[in-house]
Amino acid sequence: MPSVVVIHGPNLDLLGRREPEIYGRTSLQEINAQLARFAEDCGVALSFFQSNAEHELIARVHEAGHEAADWIIINPAGLTHTSVVLRDALAAAGVPFIEVHLSNPERRESFRHHSYLADLAEGRISGFGADSYLLALQAVINRFDLKT
Amino acid sequence: MPSVVVIHGPNLDLLGRREPEIYGRTSLQEINAQLARFAEDCGVALSFFQSNAEHELIARVHEAGHEAADWIIINPAGLTHTSVVLRDALAAAGVPFIEVHLSNPERRESFRHHSYLADLAEGRISGFGADSYLLALQAVINRFDLKT
Amino acid sequence: MPSVVVIHGPNLDLLGRREPEIYGRTSLQEINAQLARFAEDCGVALSFFQSNAEHELIARVHEAGHEAADWIIINPAGLTHTSVVLRDALAAAGVPFIEVHLSNPERRESFRHHSYLADLAEGRISGFGADSYLLALQAVINRFDLKT
Amino acid sequence: MPSVVVIHGPNLDLLGRREPEIYGRTSLQEINAQLARFAEDCGVALSFFQSNAEHELIARVHEAGHEAADWIIINPAGLTHTSVVLRDALAAAGVPFIEVHLSNPERRESFRHHSYLADLAEGRISGFGADSYLLALQAVINRFDLKT
Amino acid sequence: MPSVVVIHGPNLDLLGRREPEIYGRTSLQEINAQLARFAEDCGVALSFFQSNAEHELIARVHEAGHEAADWIIINPAGLTHTSVVLRDALAAAGVPFIEVHLSNPERRESFRHHSYLADLAEGRISGFGADSYLLALQAVINRFDLKT
Amino acid sequence: MPSVVVIHGPNLDLLGRREPEIYGRTSLQEINAQLARFAEDCGVALSFFQSNAEHELIARVHEAGHEAADWIIINPAGLTHTSVVLRDALAAAGVPFIEVHLSNPERRESFRHHSYLADLAEGRISGFGADSYLLALQAVINRFDLKT
Amino acid sequence: MPSVVVIHGPNLDLLGRREPEIYGRTSLQEINAQLARFAEDCGVALSFFQSNAEHELIARVHEAGHEAADWIIINPAGLTHTSVVLRDALAAAGVPFIEVHLSNPERRESFRHHSYLADLAEGRISGFGADSYLLALQAVINRFDLKT
Amino acid sequence: MPSVVVIHGPNLDLLGRREPEIYGRTSLQEINAQLARFAEDCGVALSFFQSNAEHELIARVHEAGHEAADWIIINPAGLTHTSVVLRDALAAAGVPFIEVHLSNPERRESFRHHSYLADLAEGRISGFGADSYLLALQAVINRFDLKT
Amino acid sequence: MPSVVVIHGPNLDLLGRREPEIYGRTSLQEINAQLARFAEDCGVALSFFQSNAEHELIARVHEAGHEAADWIIINPAGLTHTSVVLRDALAAAGVPFIEVHLSNPERRESFRHHSYLADLAEGRISGFGADSYLLALQAVINRFDLKT
Amino acid sequence: MPSVVVIHGPNLDLLGRREPEIYGRTSLQEINAQLARFAEDCGVALSFFQSNAEHELIARVHEAGHEAADWIIINPAGLTHTSVVLRDALAAAGVPFIEVHLSNPERRESFRHHSYLADLAEGRISGFGADSYLLALQAVINRFDLKT
Amino acid sequence: MPSVVVIHGPNLDLLGRREPEIYGRTSLQEINAQLARFAEDCGVALSFFQSNAEHELIARVHEAGHEAADWIIINPAGLTHTSVVLRDALAAAGVPFIEVHLSNPERRESFRHHSYLADLAEGRISGFGADSYLLALQAVINRFDLKT
Amino acid sequence: MPSVVVIHGPNLDLLGRREPEIYGRTSLQEINAQLARFAEDCGVALSFFQSNAEHELIARVHEAGHEAADWIIINPAGLTHTSVVLRDALAAAGVPFIEVHLSNPERRESFRHHSYLADLAEGRISGFGADSYLLALQAVINRFDLKT
Repeated sequence: MPSVVVIHGPNLDLLGRREPEIYGRTSLQEINAQLARFAEDCGVALSFFQSNAEHELIARVHEAGHEAADWIIINPAGLTHTSVVLRDALAAAGVPFIEVHLSNPERRESFRHHSYLADLAEGRISGFGADSYLLALQAVINRFDLKT
Repeated sequence: MPSVVVIHGPNLDLLGRREPEIYGRTSLQEINAQLARFAEDCGVALSFFQSNAEHELIARVHEAGHEAADWIIINPAGLTHTSVVLRDALAAAGVPFIEVHLSNPERRESFRHHSYLADLAEGRISGFGADSYLLALQAVINRFDLKT
Repeated sequence: MPSVVVIHGPNLDLLGRREPEIYGRTSLQEINAQLARFAEDCGVALSFFQSNAEHELIARVHEAGHEAADWIIINPAGLTHTSVVLRDALAAAGVPFIEVHLSNPERRESFRHHSYLADLAEGRISGFGADSYLLALQAVINRFDLKT
Repeated sequence: MPSVVVIHGPNLDLLGRREPEIYGRTSLQEINAQLARFAEDCGVALSFFQSNAEHELIARVHEAGHEAADWIIINPAGLTHTSVVLRDALAAAGVPFIEVHLSNPERRESFRHHSYLADLAEGRISGFGADSYLLALQAVINRFDLKT
Repeated sequence: MPSVVVIHGPNLDLLGRREPEIYGRTSLQEINAQLARFAEDCGVALSFFQSNAEHELIARVHEAGHEAADWIIINPAGLTHTSVVLRDALAAAGVPFIEVHLSNPERRESFRHHSYLADLAEGRISGFGADSYLLALQAVINRFDLKT
Repeated sequence: MPSVVVIHGPNLDLLGRREPEIYGRTSLQEINAQLARFAEDCGVALSFFQSNAEHELIARVHEAGHEAADWIIINPAGLTHTSVVLRDALAAAGVPFIEVHLSNPERRESFRHHSYLADLAEGRISGFGADSYLLALQAVINRFDLKT
Repeated sequence: MPSVVVIHGPNLDLLGRREPEIYGRTSLQEINAQLARFAEDCGVALSFFQSNAEHELIARVHEAGHEAADWIIINPAGLTHTSVVLRDALAAAGVPFIEVHLSNPERRESFRHHSYLADLAEGRISGFGADSYLLALQAVINRFDLKT
Repeated sequence: MPSVVVIHGPNLDLLGRREPEIYGRTSLQEINAQLARFAEDCGVALSFFQSNAEHELIARVHEAGHEAADWIIINPAGLTHTSVVLRDALAAAGVPFIEVHLSNPERRESFRHHSYLADLAEGRISGFGADSYLLALQAVINRFDLKT
Repeated sequence: MPSVVVIHGPNLDLLGRREPEIYGRTSLQEINAQLARFAEDCGVALSFFQSNAEHELIARVHEAGHEAADWIIINPAGLTHTSVVLRDALAAAGVPFIEVHLSNPERRESFRHHSYLADLAEGRISGFGADSYLLALQAVINRFDLKT
Repeated sequence: MPSVVVIHGPNLDLLGRREPEIYGRTSLQEINAQLARFAEDCGVALSFFQSNAEHELIARVHEAGHEAADWIIINPAGLTHTSVVLRDALAAAGVPFIEVHLSNPERRESFRHHSYLADLAEGRISGFGADSYLLALQAVINRFDLKT
Repeated sequence: MPSVVVIHGPNLDLLGRREPEIYGRTSLQEINAQLARFAEDCGVALSFFQSNAEHELIARVHEAGHEAADWIIINPAGLTHTSVVLRDALAAAGVPFIEVHLSNPERRESFRHHSYLADLAEGRISGFGADSYLLALQAVINRFDLKT
Repeated sequence: MPSVVVIHGPNLDLLGRREPEIYGRTSLQEINAQLARFAEDCGVALSFFQSNAEHELIARVHEAGHEAADWIIINPAGLTHTSVVLRDALAAAGVPFIEVHLSNPERRESFRHHSYLADLAEGRISGFGADSYLLALQAVINRFDLKT
């Protein structure tokens, strides 16, 4: 049974309350619940992690490497644009990952147009709100040749 | 019954033969067939268009506007990085669209890191090979609240 | 009787329908009709051309050179910012030209602030909507020392 | 009866004598006389102002705001590229304005390619020598729906 | 009774000992004491927080949002120039804030000239040493229409 | 009795009427009156100067140097971003000064993000509307160890 | 018998008439005739193509790939500096190619100093007028170890 | 007996397992053991610290300042390129330090070519794998005029 | 008898008092007196002008053109780096000029490294304090083939 | 009998041994021999020069000017990207020259994309290995209207 | 017995006399003597070379390649930042090398922050004065698995 | 008796013959003769040096330091823009120097606008042809308080 780790970066704990015109009205709990249902249907073992602390995110990425997770789905939030150490953690862990964004960063401030993770990511999905995660999970499942 | 137009940009007619280490081994015909089956299952009217000519792509985008298509899924290929007129056509047509790439442009030459369409796109999906299109269609279907 | 060729670039066929808050509500047909009336009053032979295809615009510019037109009035639309070949065609044709824009490109995205035609143009007029063309024709007529 | 203020920036008092290969041989007096005749024909109240002093130009712009002028036609000359305070004055006065240049700045030194006024201007006209002003006045008159 | 949260960023716990020629000789405790006295005089509820950890600063900002604080006064120290996630936290919390610096960052290394918080801040005060905080509190009090 | 010179740059004579959504509705006379009352309470000799002319502002700065003023509070307005000569005058006069802005320049056009005065200023205050001046005066008074 | 495809880009149909001080006085027909004679002498099968349309150039490049041509000699003209899709077509076709220019682009406008094809080309020849093509053909022939 | 603090930045806990083609196969434990033996031979008190958390690294640097350590040897890893707060901590602690890298950052991505610590470091050593640390310790010992 | 106009830009009236470590201790009056004596010895008619107002400097340059002065020696001070209109005045006046600086601008802030006058100047002399003017006058005299 | 000087820049004496995957396996002696044979066949007087010293290359270029050589064929090697003095020597000598490169510099490090000689060269040939020289000689011979 | 060539670049012959606050007071002779003693102790054959001439440095590097030296330790001094030909020589010689600097270039002018050798170097050591060389030799010895 | 060393950089041996429209028609011998006469009149010991070799120029600069010359007058020619080692030699020699140019580099290619020597020079003189040297010598003599 394939395992996927879903990692949510800083400030995503505020989802649903934080600037809903940008990030939508769905809470992180709801997103996780949706993902969990979908994963269960597809026979994928899903675990979730959110932190506002860069080093905890790094620790979770390392752990994914140690436990030989099959995929990481990560929304690095604001760290996308500034964190070389998160990038290094993902490179070190050696787990293929998908970079996910709720909003379309290209529509926002120019400092959001660059991602330190992008060239390491297997794929990137952005702009679909909570669906961005679901599509990423779909993408992972497709790779496992599973039926949806 | 919702309608979606899938538009493939220049050189994608060579898919499967062209630099398979970058673009994969699936031909455009196979991709279209996959999409057609998926669309049929979901009750979506799908039409396809490929051209190496910028003006024909513009014409197809205009037409999508005239026929009030619900969504465009577009892989603008090399025009992503150079075509203001394709951008203008999409803005003018007023049909929401998803920007799709087979490969992950962030892994390639630096001139591929900028997209003239990105800030207009509803969402962007890249790096999943032929699956990028399927995920885009999935994203559209999710918006229609259809079951997959 | 002096001859003037009016060339409209890509997407201008949508004029009146396309983003009217930027481009106004007058259709291309109406603009051409206005110009034709004005030209007739002034004894100027006017011909019109619109295309979404760069190569057809180039062909029309070449033709203007072959038929020794006195002036070209051109709204290069999105090609303003990207087309070296259209620039080269105008340089090759040897017909003096005026660069015209409906909107004021300086108010829009930064990629619209540069024009590949600007330093070759005899003059530039922008921001007056459909009137930009009329003023360009007026400018041409002034050069012919005609009364308006 | 609509009122228009024509403002000439620094060094334009030398017009006709100064670098005629760039600026032409018509003097400022002649330009003003031409404009006055045209305005009279069209029933527009025209006033003129030239100064080499930035603060006097600002004062004239403020005054145009106080007297509720309908339009300003301004050739900011060298201040185009350097004066934020003139820009601020125009924004503050709230009178719509047209930016006019005798020569085509895009053909000259690269520091002349940027204008601090451009994105506030209703429209811009450049490269037609003294005619640039006449076309600007024509543009204003068109807005008043006057016959020429 | 209005509430204000004062947040001190990384390394400010060393204040008074650290590079006094740049940051002055007043300790953080002394600054807080001064602010507390001033706040008490003015009937403002003041709370203080210092951390060298970005995620703790984010947590405190989130908390300020949850407790509906009226204002945040924040000296982001070195995070000013690097932290998108702190910026995002402030945007998400929805509490108006003032950005404060002891020294004048414009006098220092060029990487200190850019602030990721500046365009979100209600106001900015820098260069007055410990007084920068007092002035910020004064500014907040002025907004409450309190007498000092 | 300490002396402070308050200098208002170009276009600030329009305050209250000019773009109130940016600069607020308080007139310069009202700001000066507020400052005068505050100064009188604190025993500070305050003088005011406004000009739209760079050279008059320079003259006033020189004069402040000649009369050995204790502080200058200056809102250089649009000259902030363009005037090396005003910078040089302040450096030459040798009077410590505070740079003040009504609005937050970091929220506005990118050319407003650089200040030619910033690295010479003792401190900077921006974004508080008319209060920016009052806070600057407060800062000066704090330096004199006066009670407010 | 080795096959070589010679491809001329936009505006080269005007050769001989267009800006002869830059491009020389030889027509495209004459260049092709020279090349044909040379090829015949050397036993090389040569075919020619000129188009002002990017998509026709792409089609010809694809065709060269399909017919397994040995070499392409291409003068991309103004598309050199702007066309990622032509670059992609050449990469996809997999036929080694030589980039040829009549003039020396380094002597001309700075936008002509960058080529989107250069790093894919086997070799580059520029500045020899019509001879640039002959030298390219010579280079190809040298590779076939043919005597000239 | 002189004291030296060796600080290892984020992800270095994975050393030996992480991308060995870049970072080598020696684990952090082995490096520390090597250093400890060398230090013991030379009569230097050595302490070690590794963390993936920026704030813990800052705390260790502060502590080195408090305990008046003689030198810091620091491999800031990915924080090299992004952390102003770590830089500030080192400046504040006032302990001379050597910047160490296992790999040669100049051979890697361009974002690794800039270091926020470099201009504060007494010296820099990079590219020697685990030996980089030993050489740094040697450099420190040389400063103490100790025999090796 | 040849005529030379010596023009001193903004803030040079403070010479001798202003930042003597940069500009030296000689006053403008003393410099002018030295120049006058030298000019008298050489039979050159010298006139002096200083202003802090850009428009007065422009007026003096225009006047030099009207009176057909043989040379201008100008120290544009801070306007060197910002004034396109002073540049335009010098170009318009048509009097050859020498650009003079007391200090060496290349040793100072980077914004002083660019001069808007440099490419129009016949020659440039900087860094010799008051002697810079004397050398410029010497240069002019050499051109008149006068003995010194 | 026309004379041509072939100049080889620094490190080309190592040709054949140095990085053969970039520069090929032909030695400089072999290249020169090939060129000599070809020149003899065509009745061209050829002389060769190689040096690793910039000043010796300059001296040879000067000498070519003194002896009124008809052409220089120069491979400036690494000096291409750094030597203004070699450029100046070529401009001073007044002998038309062709810039030659064995490899295609556009495929290599970005600092190799700029040439200080390019805009002075009559033509440029790169990427053909040793053949680059032969093609250059061919180009020279074509100019002499010689048969090959 | 392993062989190491120590190469000192331009101006290093002045060491000890030249700007001692930057480069220290040890002469080159003393450094070489120190290195010789150390090498002798370790059984390494060391040879020294200093030149102010780029071509002599290149020659010495070539020679090191010819004699199959095991390592080069090079302080390229000012050539670090400008010499592509020295870089090419080192690449061609194929001898692994260490780049050494007495001072810390990151503390000095910005043009010293880039090195043309850095990405080819096995390792880099800077900022330790004369010790930089000793550490480099130590590094080499470590590679030979020699005891110190 | 004060001593001055005049150093002429690469290609200046061609003076009078080389591009006279830029550099004038006076030969280096004539310039030196003029300088020698002037120096003799003023009691200054003058020596001359010209070389096309950077290392010989460095050697002469070092020598000037060893012989404790009072001043260097140097025209670095093309090395102005590229030679850090010449800069370092001048800094090391500790002899004050004047940078001299025959032409005005600001009128020429943009790569000539930067000088690696400028910020070290006591003064700079450019644009006066051969007179640039004479003025530099005059400047030196003025420093010695000699009468001319």
